[in-house]
Amino acid sequence: MNHDLHRLFLSQLAPDEILNDAAAIEPLLWDDRGRFYGAADIVLQPRAVASVQKILRLCHENRIAVTPQGGNTGLCGAATPAGGVLLLLHRLNHIGAVNHADRCITVGAGAVLQQVQAAVRAENVFFPLSLASEGSCQIGGNLACNAGGINVLRYGTARDLVLGLEVVLPDGSLISQLAPLHKNTTGLDIKQLFIGSEGTLGIITAATLKLFPAPHDTATLWANCTDIAACVRLLNVLRRHCGDRVKSFEMISAAALSVSLNDLQQTPPAGEVGAWQVLCDLENEAGCPPWQERLPEILLEHGFDDVLLAQNDSQRARWWQLREHIAAAQKRRGVSLKHDIAMPIATVADFVTACGQAVQAAFPHAEIVLFGHLGDGSLHYNVFLPDLPDKRAYAHEDALNQIVYRHVLEHRGTIAAEHGIGVMKREWLQHVRTPAEIAIMRALKNHLDPHHIMNPGKVLPD
Amino acid sequence: MNHDLHRLFLSQLAPDEILNDAAAIEPLLWDDRGRFYGAADIVLQPRAVASVQKILRLCHENRIAVTPQGGNTGLCGAATPAGGVLLLLHRLNHIGAVNHADRCITVGAGAVLQQVQAAVRAENVFFPLSLASEGSCQIGGNLACNAGGINVLRYGTARDLVLGLEVVLPDGSLISQLAPLHKNTTGLDIKQLFIGSEGTLGIITAATLKLFPAPHDTATLWANCTDIAACVRLLNVLRRHCGDRVKSFEMISAAALSVSLNDLQQTPPAGEVGAWQVLCDLENEAGCPPWQERLPEILLEHGFDDVLLAQNDSQRARWWQLREHIAAAQKRRGVSLKHDIAMPIATVADFVTACGQAVQAAFPHAEIVLFGHLGDGSLHYNVFLPDLPDKRAYAHEDALNQIVYRHVLEHRGTIAAEHGIGVMKREWLQHVRTPAEIAIMRALKNHLDPHHIMNPGKVLPD
Repeated sequence: MNHDLHRLFLSQLAPDEILNDAAAIEPLLWDDRGRFYGAADIVLQPRAVASVQKILRLCHENRIAVTPQGGNTGLCGAATPAGGVLLLLHRLNHIGAVNHADRCITVGAGAVLQQVQAAVRAENVFFPLSLASEGSCQIGGNLACNAGGINVLRYGTARDLVLGLEVVLPDGSLISQLAPLHKNTTGLDIKQLFIGSEGTLGIITAATLKLFPAPHDTATLWANCTDIAACVRLLNVLRRHCGDRVKSFEMISAAALSVSLNDLQQTPPAGEVGAWQVLCDLENEAGCPPWQERLPEILLEHGFDDVLLAQNDSQRARWWQLREHIAAAQKRRGVSLKHDIAMPIATVADFVTACGQAVQAAFPHAEIVLFGHLGDGSLHYNVFLPDLPDKRAYAHEDALNQIVYRHVLEHRGTIAAEHGIGVMKREWLQHVRTPAEIAIMRALKNHLDPHHIMNPGKVLPD
Repeated sequence: MNHDLHRLFLSQLAPDEILNDAAAIEPLLWDDRGRFYGAADIVLQPRAVASVQKILRLCHENRIAVTPQGGNTGLCGAATPAGGVLLLLHRLNHIGAVNHADRCITVGAGAVLQQVQAAVRAENVFFPLSLASEGSCQIGGNLACNAGGINVLRYGTARDLVLGLEVVLPDGSLISQLAPLHKNTTGLDIKQLFIGSEGTLGIITAATLKLFPAPHDTATLWANCTDIAACVRLLNVLRRHCGDRVKSFEMISAAALSVSLNDLQQTPPAGEVGAWQVLCDLENEAGCPPWQERLPEILLEHGFDDVLLAQNDSQRARWWQLREHIAAAQKRRGVSLKHDIAMPIATVADFVTACGQAVQAAFPHAEIVLFGHLGDGSLHYNVFLPDLPDKRAYAHEDALNQIVYRHVLEHRGTIAAEHGIGVMKREWLQHVRTPAEIAIMRALKNHLDPHHIMNPGKVLPD
């Protein structure tokens, strides 16, 4: 606790807007994976947007660094403080009423994603953003990182789900554009600057989110495929016959499934583990025959004779648990080197072959645990070094990244699909974005945050 | 024709990339409505992106103004040249192959929208952007203006349909991000800056567009409603029961319908003309009972007993013709003062009452011809002054705009829904955007285009 800062902020905030409990503060200084540990001179928890404005105005005037933090579930260290103010948004957690005519809801940045999902479900509408940390991540963080998740194939990323945004700029001024305007062509669409900015340009304090008709119910499919080309063929068949009812389309390698099966002590859904498995949700529609009835014939007609359809909700839940448990099961084995990547779906098969060979050549003992959202081209490419199952693995991270990211770039892909850049991939940004693009980012940063107080050390390379 | 400019550009371009035909040039100097007339010192029609780069480099170095022009179908004068170079994009009209795995297609900026629609339809996929000028407007212009149209309710605006973009910056450098990446969190999403920029920040030369499963077929509904609240209630009922199968939802006032009926010498679909009519398309799905079978019961259950369903394609086409002919029919009556506005759907009814009273109080003879895309909250609010059916009406435009736009702003709306700002609404931008927002726009402009060569006099007020 810095006493000067304490005095400074107490002059403008209520006493309970300063968090003094050291035990509560300690976990906030760590990132979710326990890789990054930061420091904060003071931790603030404003209870209103006006307080956020006061805080930023003081920080701007006094050149104090500010790191915004939502649910602290980010995976690239973007919410780990680097001195100065750690700014918690959790108290801006109001959830407005559903506006049915405009199919939207306005919520505070601190609203927990799962609570937003539940609030709108009670009104028979649907907010499709869904990801592993939904029980604790907050909407402000979801938008600041342009979160992805399992329903992007059907509904797009967080960016696509925003109708309006409220932002406090680094100098404390407010841009509040929360009206649900489905069409608006009045110059630059300002909200796009802040979505995906990872807290480097301002603080998102509220958003108006798009809502969708609640899906009727879901058909879930599990398929064993001999190669990735077959997975892509299955995706194309489903898209052609089921249209945009294909809601999620996950691909799981044999190695990834085994990690999950072993840890859960379960048997594979299809009796044996294929080279690649597909897990896919399809939305059924009221008044239409469910996909469970229609799909078997369609699949057989296209030569897919090794596809299971979940018979009930508990089977469905078990299959999804196998998918969702991969990361946790892997963590229990030890440290692995993770890559959150995406590329054109048409190039995934090539990439996996070429990159796998290069990784195995450099690291003969490496186990590649690959799974991800094939339906939108994003993959979790995790490498486990069984001879180095602890933090010593990190000594090899740069060498491994060189191999993986080089192959990603050769396949027109991106080194950050849905986890962002944060502090972890900063030096890689210049390999995926041209100097002209980075110059635009710097120009915007310099205009909005001339003293570089906002989330210093994140996203842009020094 | 300016001989110095001719010599300058001929040093870098092929002779046929300079258009010298005065008869061909003359119509390009007029905007679509014949309200704005410009001047160009030279007209260029590059046949490759490299030529666009050369042109901009020369213009940047020599401080020459550049006005990009696609199909010249804009309605706010954004493509009308103001001296210097008029840059035609029509030769960058390649249409790539459909990429089915990634559900996308890459096309040049000069590709005509209708040709893109047709090219993908032949591959059994669907590009949903659809608007009145689709037979001649070009994709580059559609994106530069973030075009809307009739399917926004279901598929979003042009912005929502872009996976990748290629842009030549004002200094001639190229940003080419055409890979179809459904997830990408590597800093600022640069393409968002250029979509909707109306040619003030750079030249869009190509785009990778999202494609969708081709709709099976369409059910079309015509309803007479006594008030706007009933139209909104019908929209909500359809959304609840038909989900996102509601593709378009148009509202037409009695006055607007009469203008179209009289000009076409037709009778109203429902025998009489109600205060408000709804015209709505719903997508049917293969393997499901068509909406034509399911809807009557649903509508009756909610008290909508005055709804017609098109019995065949020719009836469907006739109904849509009534909607689409309104603007043309009105033009034949004389000049009307037009407003392209949008607001939250929940506020439309209030706005129409309040604004209508104010307009009638100031202009007792005014005929308000109102129609639009109620499903996305955008309205065409056209005012005809029968005592001034010629250009004298423009003398009253400022006074009328003051009334209409004030009411729009009071209802949290926007003064530019889908036609942009151009030269026409420049002075109004500062009433809908805060100084902080306009300062961001200027900072971006100054960074990308320090000599302000790009489309001078458009969008930003002086």
